[in-house]
Amino acid sequence: MKTVGIGILGCGTVGSGVAQELQERSSLLAERAGMVLELRRVAVRDLSRSRDVSFEEGVLTDDPRSVVADPSVDIVIELIGGVDLARELVLMALTAGKSVVTANKALLAEHGKELFAVAAENNADLFFEASVAGAVPIIKALREGLAGNQIQRIVGILNGTCNYILTCMEDGGTEFDVALKDAMEMGYAEADPSLDIDGGDTAHKALILAALAYNRFFDQSDIVVDGIRGIALDDLQYAAELGYRIKLLGVILQDGDQIAVRIHPALVPHGRMLASVTGSYNAVMVDGHLSGTTVFHGRGAGREPTTSAVLADVVDVVRNLSSGATGRLPVVDGTADHLSLRPIEDMRVRYYLRMELLDEPGVFAKISECLGSHGISISSVLQKSSVVDGFVPAIIMTHVAPEGAFCAALEELRPMDAVGDEVVSIRVEEFEEAE
Amino acid sequence: MKTVGIGILGCGTVGSGVAQELQERSSLLAERAGMVLELRRVAVRDLSRSRDVSFEEGVLTDDPRSVVADPSVDIVIELIGGVDLARELVLMALTAGKSVVTANKALLAEHGKELFAVAAENNADLFFEASVAGAVPIIKALREGLAGNQIQRIVGILNGTCNYILTCMEDGGTEFDVALKDAMEMGYAEADPSLDIDGGDTAHKALILAALAYNRFFDQSDIVVDGIRGIALDDLQYAAELGYRIKLLGVILQDGDQIAVRIHPALVPHGRMLASVTGSYNAVMVDGHLSGTTVFHGRGAGREPTTSAVLADVVDVVRNLSSGATGRLPVVDGTADHLSLRPIEDMRVRYYLRMELLDEPGVFAKISECLGSHGISISSVLQKSSVVDGFVPAIIMTHVAPEGAFCAALEELRPMDAVGDEVVSIRVEEFEEAE
Repeated sequence: MKTVGIGILGCGTVGSGVAQELQERSSLLAERAGMVLELRRVAVRDLSRSRDVSFEEGVLTDDPRSVVADPSVDIVIELIGGVDLARELVLMALTAGKSVVTANKALLAEHGKELFAVAAENNADLFFEASVAGAVPIIKALREGLAGNQIQRIVGILNGTCNYILTCMEDGGTEFDVALKDAMEMGYAEADPSLDIDGGDTAHKALILAALAYNRFFDQSDIVVDGIRGIALDDLQYAAELGYRIKLLGVILQDGDQIAVRIHPALVPHGRMLASVTGSYNAVMVDGHLSGTTVFHGRGAGREPTTSAVLADVVDVVRNLSSGATGRLPVVDGTADHLSLRPIEDMRVRYYLRMELLDEPGVFAKISECLGSHGISISSVLQKSSVVDGFVPAIIMTHVAPEGAFCAALEELRPMDAVGDEVVSIRVEEFEEAE
Repeated sequence: MKTVGIGILGCGTVGSGVAQELQERSSLLAERAGMVLELRRVAVRDLSRSRDVSFEEGVLTDDPRSVVADPSVDIVIELIGGVDLARELVLMALTAGKSVVTANKALLAEHGKELFAVAAENNADLFFEASVAGAVPIIKALREGLAGNQIQRIVGILNGTCNYILTCMEDGGTEFDVALKDAMEMGYAEADPSLDIDGGDTAHKALILAALAYNRFFDQSDIVVDGIRGIALDDLQYAAELGYRIKLLGVILQDGDQIAVRIHPALVPHGRMLASVTGSYNAVMVDGHLSGTTVFHGRGAGREPTTSAVLADVVDVVRNLSSGATGRLPVVDGTADHLSLRPIEDMRVRYYLRMELLDEPGVFAKISECLGSHGISISSVLQKSSVVDGFVPAIIMTHVAPEGAFCAALEELRPMDAVGDEVVSIRVEEFEEAE
């Protein structure tokens, strides 16, 4: 059996997981890949750090460029994260005709178009299963398993940290700050958790899925990205009373030549598969014109699940290499220029609206009159009896309405004397009506 | 762009779905496959039958062998079902070096080893995504998406008819016979539904999944195959009271060099993903040593979902063809001879046991003494107060026990005077403890 040389850039949590498997499961991997995978070079930041994986003399280096340039390295696994150095190294590998496996969602979301073009020019594979939903082979499902379908909708719970926090709040009655601290202690959230909880990480992943489904790269600055900081314990409890869970979703929808891509928390009805995704799990729901609704669920992050995805890509790349079929899959070249982003004002969903209302006769009539004047009709109301400083909490569920009209109504409601300071609105995803 | 010739054997529900897509979505499919897919020949049983798809002059024939032999046909899609003729035609195609896409689970479960060997000898692809779980790309996930994993467990809801019947019984309080009739009217169940409801169809699919995960073909006659005929409405209702749903499962487990494969109804705890699979949907849960638990959910049968799977395979086969990489994936050659089937007596699960007990003092003590003498301890008891002819229904949930001991206890319990005629036992799958 022939041997293929592997180089790893970055030996943190995932890098050491991949290195360990390459060492300890070499016969399983050789059987799956049809070639012996030999780990030849590993680039680390700090050579003096102690590690739980040991390497032969000469494997470790603190010069990542030397790993890419090493003629004994045929395939480069990029796990250093970040964007600038990662981009430089991936481009260097691809230009040399070396295939690359990466878990780097920020890199792909920001520079995917350039990187895939360079991969195609140099007949190298650039695979990225680990960039979205960890162990769940959603990239492969979209590119290959559902290849006969026009993709109509993708909705994903793509950030395990946020889902963990929301689950703690909902099931344990934990306040946001406490749940966040807990997620950090569990190692789910980074030291700076803003990329997770403000939706940026979910946006990177959704943009990759959108690019795959529609062959078009959109900019993060052009889409709505709302995180979960504004979600109060009350909202989760009221939502539960109304038959919903709150999830941070990445939503991608096609409507003719328009693609909607948006990241925001949403109420999801109990009984829907996505509502039963708890803890740090991820799930992606994909609707195809033939497949109907499919759901893919599993561990979205962590050493072993990410290693699982990286190794699947490595096996795939090696199979291409050994059968002379590198570049076998079409690259995402982003040439679907006829598609444009759908403006957020045109979105049509139901809304959950929580306000404090003055506990006086006629107040509710004013509110519903205001909503009605913008064409928004009320589906149900949950009014609480607990009066604080003369105000009572009220939760209004609307029928489907255009985002633009709803925002205009909110602008009018907020300054009213009868409306308290806190006005919270969360979109509702029923997963039945198309937008 | 080059053109590849497609032949379809069988133009029933799925065959006409595939033909229609090849005609109506040719540009989408060409983009995905990198070649134009041209439908050149279609074999039907009855040329005079009217169809919802129209074909050009010369495409239709009632001689399937002529389709396989036609030099303009490069890829054969086998959708005639059944085993003998399908086997002959698939062998004929493979021997001619033509790749084959099939949805035929019975064929693969019974003759997989032979067919894959012939495919390998002739460097042809034999793809079968549509044979298990319809639109859900579970074959691709197991072969490729989870390729870095040692697969530890697969549990599937693989028969939509049974799941539809069980859901009707549970949610609608419908008796088995009525729900079955309903499934037949909905077109889910065949005119002879025994292959579905007695577990044979699930067995075929589980054997294919086991072959993929462990590279070993097992015989259906060597595994436990229990269907859902024995499940009463009472059982679903008692199970619900205890916090469970009843599902027909295909279970595949590795324990060292032993593989357990068994098909039977089981109590599944509420809150588990598999418990929330309702109606005619399918789902497959896969545990890998790296991936942890993943779940794949979607439509398991019907024209469009099966067409989705068939077309994904066709695109894959064409990609191999155009890049000269036919035979790129290792075939399931079944050479893992060191693996054997785990004897059913060694299975260790919890049991749900429903009996009618004589409403007299001391009876329950006798029952628990009998169970105890076989090493089976009781976890909980649900005793009903409704006395009929002196007997009351009692439901016993046991702790984990070996199947052999449990069956021996049942043998002893059945003839007791204090035990009524109907003794129903159903295995419980908690999905936490390994067997």
